[in-house]
Amino acid sequence: MSTVKAYGNQSATALLEALNIERRALNADDVNIEILYCGVCHSDIHTARSEWGPAKYPVVPGHEIIGRVISTGDAVSRFNVGDIVGVGCMVDSCQHCSSCEDDLEQYCENGFTGTYGSADKHLGGHTFGGYAEQIVVREKFVLNIPGNLEIAKVAPLLCAGITTWSPLKHWNVKAGDKVGIIGLGGLGHMGIKFAHAMGATVVMITTSAAKGNDARLLGADEVLISTDESQMDQHKNSFDFLLNTIPVGHDVDPYLNLLKRDKTMVMVGAIEPLTNINSGVLVRKRRNIAGSLIGGIKETQEMLDFCGEHNVLPEVEMINMQEINEAWNRVVKADIKYRFVIDMASLK
Amino acid sequence: MSTVKAYGNQSATALLEALNIERRALNADDVNIEILYCGVCHSDIHTARSEWGPAKYPVVPGHEIIGRVISTGDAVSRFNVGDIVGVGCMVDSCQHCSSCEDDLEQYCENGFTGTYGSADKHLGGHTFGGYAEQIVVREKFVLNIPGNLEIAKVAPLLCAGITTWSPLKHWNVKAGDKVGIIGLGGLGHMGIKFAHAMGATVVMITTSAAKGNDARLLGADEVLISTDESQMDQHKNSFDFLLNTIPVGHDVDPYLNLLKRDKTMVMVGAIEPLTNINSGVLVRKRRNIAGSLIGGIKETQEMLDFCGEHNVLPEVEMINMQEINEAWNRVVKADIKYRFVIDMASLK
Repeated sequence: MSTVKAYGNQSATALLEALNIERRALNADDVNIEILYCGVCHSDIHTARSEWGPAKYPVVPGHEIIGRVISTGDAVSRFNVGDIVGVGCMVDSCQHCSSCEDDLEQYCENGFTGTYGSADKHLGGHTFGGYAEQIVVREKFVLNIPGNLEIAKVAPLLCAGITTWSPLKHWNVKAGDKVGIIGLGGLGHMGIKFAHAMGATVVMITTSAAKGNDARLLGADEVLISTDESQMDQHKNSFDFLLNTIPVGHDVDPYLNLLKRDKTMVMVGAIEPLTNINSGVLVRKRRNIAGSLIGGIKETQEMLDFCGEHNVLPEVEMINMQEINEAWNRVVKADIKYRFVIDMASLK
Repeated sequence: MSTVKAYGNQSATALLEALNIERRALNADDVNIEILYCGVCHSDIHTARSEWGPAKYPVVPGHEIIGRVISTGDAVSRFNVGDIVGVGCMVDSCQHCSSCEDDLEQYCENGFTGTYGSADKHLGGHTFGGYAEQIVVREKFVLNIPGNLEIAKVAPLLCAGITTWSPLKHWNVKAGDKVGIIGLGGLGHMGIKFAHAMGATVVMITTSAAKGNDARLLGADEVLISTDESQMDQHKNSFDFLLNTIPVGHDVDPYLNLLKRDKTMVMVGAIEPLTNINSGVLVRKRRNIAGSLIGGIKETQEMLDFCGEHNVLPEVEMINMQEINEAWNRVVKADIKYRFVIDMASLK
């Protein structure tokens, strides 16, 4: 057991402040990682501000972690000291339920262990995330980072990346498909990059012409302004897949009408009530609406390898740990293109 | 062209009354059918009462038609005079779009021709349905009725039957699956019979213990009272498929929580806004919600053949045409187990 420096939040109203947190002594299958970079996810803010139910304080957020292996347990075989590795939203799961057996630990029937805010099986209390100097993680949940990627930019792949990659792969998006990405933020910008790299025709669906222009720079082939009824009408019944990244409840019917028969819109942003789903819109074309949660460890590694091959990286703005409060406020105002990454050297 | 006696509705407020309607002279691929029985579907009432938008009057409803072939066009090869045949919700479609090519005429990209209330390609005006002495239908949309089935009971298979059969087959319900049928009416009772005949473990999901008892007689293995939270909790994450036949908008979240990971609830009853879909319920288990509309002609024939093999028939109450207004009022009050069938001999 060791104490490491971290940034955390003592109450729903307090600002982030310096803490000393415990990290466990290494078990045989543990990897000890010096954190180099940590992405800033809106979930960090929701959790620390108790917006998703009462948080367990202190909260040390951060689940888009890139670091360097500084020591390993005796049974660790896949990693060596000095390796650059990643850790995402999960640090453990039961490993024996049907979902874990299907490499879908994010749907673990017994509940996965979140990187922060979950019950800590080793130390008691709850887990602490990546706004810190170090983290100890079970080998199974540690990811290889392809050597050619610019590591300062990789962190957001561990949450924003896999959250968009997983549904695109699961619903079998392929070259030639017409794919709509709804909403342009941390998730949407990765959705565009992945769908484009998979060879799909990518349509950015947004309320904002300015975001449409940004989307073209990221790889979108076309822009559809969702508030323009005649544009929406022109694209009716034409999409093979829709990835809906809007982070709040909204009226989904206008989007569902864009789908061809038998096609699916997947929700990855909102986890709150949607309004006005008219089941007639589903019935008339046998359309589907589904949800998707991050991704399993195996597919996260596949995504990272794909990013290495195709040099796909998020757009990031680098900050020091001391700037985190301002960064959070900018995330809430959606004033970021498209993901903050904390340079952990600033903690030293 | 000939004039036949029919029952129809002259305005949204008028009661059903006797009419004389036109039936076209036979084209080469037409079949002329003497109607023996016609099922009563809630859609008949919605249409005639302009509850689904302004109806085209006069309305002659009826799209669960069983009859005897009385003459055929020169090019008709599949039917002979005297054959017992069926006609469902569609009498034509474009036959060349992607949906028609996939034998899914109900999703015809150019709009199928409904048995009543659709534009009539031959006579102008709109189509007239099965509350009548005769109907002329393109051969492609006429169905064979297996000889062993009691024909007085077959009619509801043409709408209530195929509407529940199609999603059970499309989502691949099979022996051993745990299938929930939500709501017990004309659709729900066929859902139970089909799922049971397919070898699934069938759970009737209802607010009413009395309906639960009825459902067991129809083939349900178990009853789940949806208003009992502890029962609902026990069945959480356990269903392979849910068929939702509730005919009005409702809160679907409690049902979605019953699904296993990656499984689907299909809406066949409501075609109006649903309340409170919390996309978190979809996200956490990658669940799906979809809609399904009647079924294609090919699968309707497969369903009828299946019913012949397994002797599956709806539960019906036979009425004379003159009793139709009372029957409609009883349908609206859900006071029918489970489908009225009009004996067209009463028209003579």
